[in-house]
Amino acid sequence: MPIVALLTDFGLEDGFVGTVKGVIKSVNPDADIVDITHGITPFDILEGALVLNASYRYFPEKTVFVCVVDPGVGTERKSVAVETDRYFFVAPDNGILSLTLENEKVRKIVHLNNEKFFLQRDNETFHGRDIFAPVGGYISKGVPLENLGTNIDSIVKIEIPRPVEKDEYLVGQIIKFDRFGNGITNLQQIPPFEEIYVNNYKIRKICRNFLEGEKGQLNLVKGSFGFYEIFVPMGSAEEMFGLKKGDKVKIKLKG
Amino acid sequence: MPIVALLTDFGLEDGFVGTVKGVIKSVNPDADIVDITHGITPFDILEGALVLNASYRYFPEKTVFVCVVDPGVGTERKSVAVETDRYFFVAPDNGILSLTLENEKVRKIVHLNNEKFFLQRDNETFHGRDIFAPVGGYISKGVPLENLGTNIDSIVKIEIPRPVEKDEYLVGQIIKFDRFGNGITNLQQIPPFEEIYVNNYKIRKICRNFLEGEKGQLNLVKGSFGFYEIFVPMGSAEEMFGLKKGDKVKIKLKG
Amino acid sequence: MPIVALLTDFGLEDGFVGTVKGVIKSVNPDADIVDITHGITPFDILEGALVLNASYRYFPEKTVFVCVVDPGVGTERKSVAVETDRYFFVAPDNGILSLTLENEKVRKIVHLNNEKFFLQRDNETFHGRDIFAPVGGYISKGVPLENLGTNIDSIVKIEIPRPVEKDEYLVGQIIKFDRFGNGITNLQQIPPFEEIYVNNYKIRKICRNFLEGEKGQLNLVKGSFGFYEIFVPMGSAEEMFGLKKGDKVKIKLKG
Repeated sequence: MPIVALLTDFGLEDGFVGTVKGVIKSVNPDADIVDITHGITPFDILEGALVLNASYRYFPEKTVFVCVVDPGVGTERKSVAVETDRYFFVAPDNGILSLTLENEKVRKIVHLNNEKFFLQRDNETFHGRDIFAPVGGYISKGVPLENLGTNIDSIVKIEIPRPVEKDEYLVGQIIKFDRFGNGITNLQQIPPFEEIYVNNYKIRKICRNFLEGEKGQLNLVKGSFGFYEIFVPMGSAEEMFGLKKGDKVKIKLKG
Repeated sequence: MPIVALLTDFGLEDGFVGTVKGVIKSVNPDADIVDITHGITPFDILEGALVLNASYRYFPEKTVFVCVVDPGVGTERKSVAVETDRYFFVAPDNGILSLTLENEKVRKIVHLNNEKFFLQRDNETFHGRDIFAPVGGYISKGVPLENLGTNIDSIVKIEIPRPVEKDEYLVGQIIKFDRFGNGITNLQQIPPFEEIYVNNYKIRKICRNFLEGEKGQLNLVKGSFGFYEIFVPMGSAEEMFGLKKGDKVKIKLKG
Repeated sequence: MPIVALLTDFGLEDGFVGTVKGVIKSVNPDADIVDITHGITPFDILEGALVLNASYRYFPEKTVFVCVVDPGVGTERKSVAVETDRYFFVAPDNGILSLTLENEKVRKIVHLNNEKFFLQRDNETFHGRDIFAPVGGYISKGVPLENLGTNIDSIVKIEIPRPVEKDEYLVGQIIKFDRFGNGITNLQQIPPFEEIYVNNYKIRKICRNFLEGEKGQLNLVKGSFGFYEIFVPMGSAEEMFGLKKGDKVKIKLKG
């Protein structure tokens, strides 16, 4: 059964996700719907992009990813579908796909403007239900992208803030916390260094796993998002050290 | 595969939902289980009824809805199954189905009293597991309702509190917040008006989508629950204006 | 389709669960993945063991349970797979399976050390993705346990703290709260008693269902985890009485 994988900021409390699944199943009863997450912080496109990028590559080929973090719902922002050599993606054109598509060989992008494949809409507040779900369902049934809309050349891009070099420092930042309170940074590499600080706390160790870290202290490990993560073994770095999104990671470079 | 759609107040922390799914799969290995939500506020039958009513119609025909918000578990309240021209519903008879069934053509209602289709029970605290899950599974396998219990004529009804006319005002209220902090009201229509207030805050605009709203201010949009919703563009009306469930929406009617 | 049932402490916010599902589906497209819960308190092996034990027996035979609460990820703790006469289990060898296996007839235990069945790993922070998910997928495809690793004789055990007799008292404790605020105790039986206290609050009634309880007061019922639960009818015992995990339940024994 073709997989339709969902990533949204809809939360699980209100039935929005159930509605989206009902629509997909109505279009394609054979769709095998898999949740990536519905817990993206409301409207946080960058977080959605990060989580999608950390997860999508583990899915089988031909998976259709329906990704809806959509602060601009109902406005002029485009809805798009993208076909790469391995996957399909359906999303508002607001950057949520951009980190992922940097790693994929894009074959085709369409602006979803063939309303034949939408639900009829009474309001403009729920394109997840009215546009992205049915289109995802149709793609999972084999409807080719050219039927769904007009070819376009590119999508909107967003960028992870990059680490900045400044005097003898490389300065990164925390871009997200996970549920364990680990602080995911924007650092993919750690250059030779003398010391690393987060706020005024010194990083004690760079580790291969979480338990190697110094207890009750901040440590670093290359984590599953592909970035270095600040962690406390068996504890929450976020809570124990009062860390926040955006906090700087200052690496004093070696000589 | 026949769909069994679940709506409960069980939460996702305790494994209750997993247990229910295990039971359904044991009865009918071919059941395609879809979660609507398990995040209904504990014991809040009206919220369950609202969410079911906003979601169910997007599911394919023949879907079996198992709906368990059940403050009266283990007491004399009845368990029921309902067949309409399009769907099946299984639930405690406490009103959770009533908004939905107003829109459906009811064919048959049975009081679930054939214990042959229940799990054997050691306690009376978890009818979701012991009654509603197996019965939902059997219905999804094609067991006719008449086998499951005794015909009855009607179910318990609950009502959404209706807006009240008072002097030159129509007064509605907030009946639920969604995860974005939008306040769903009990207003399906807005009559010609001079001003609308929520507490002491003036509604600035009636919009077709969320971004049309005045920034940082309260606005109204007809939302996906079928009611007008109070919102702040890209923000939480609930948090920014300290709104609460039950807060009044005062519409000063036009001359 | 073979069921792969998941129980983790990954939460639903970060996409970890989606990634795990992608891996399972990549290994076995026919796997029917069912969530028990992903809301186990981070690192709380005992809670994971309790929830698994309350839920697993409701699943069909041959279900493959993938259970990951894994504070020791990346260290020398073993990864194991267990076959019983009815089920398969995959988990870190840290006790999470031990309550469950007391009830099951164990046929075979293997130390998962055949890396051929793992994903290639860049880091040692996510064995749920790299070891437990693919191994669960392969078992659901019919790969025999002997191919996956080396036979071992036993797994690590953890125990629920047992009630203690002391003078004329039997003293139990609260081991978990559920989402309704009910306090699950470690008491499977209540012996003949004069009075029962939790902190300084007297238990009013022992009930067969939740509504039999005295309103606004603490009561006991034998609950779905197989233990007595402290509850307030239609309320949260946890919040209304400020109860905490570990709080003592003092049963003054009869003469």
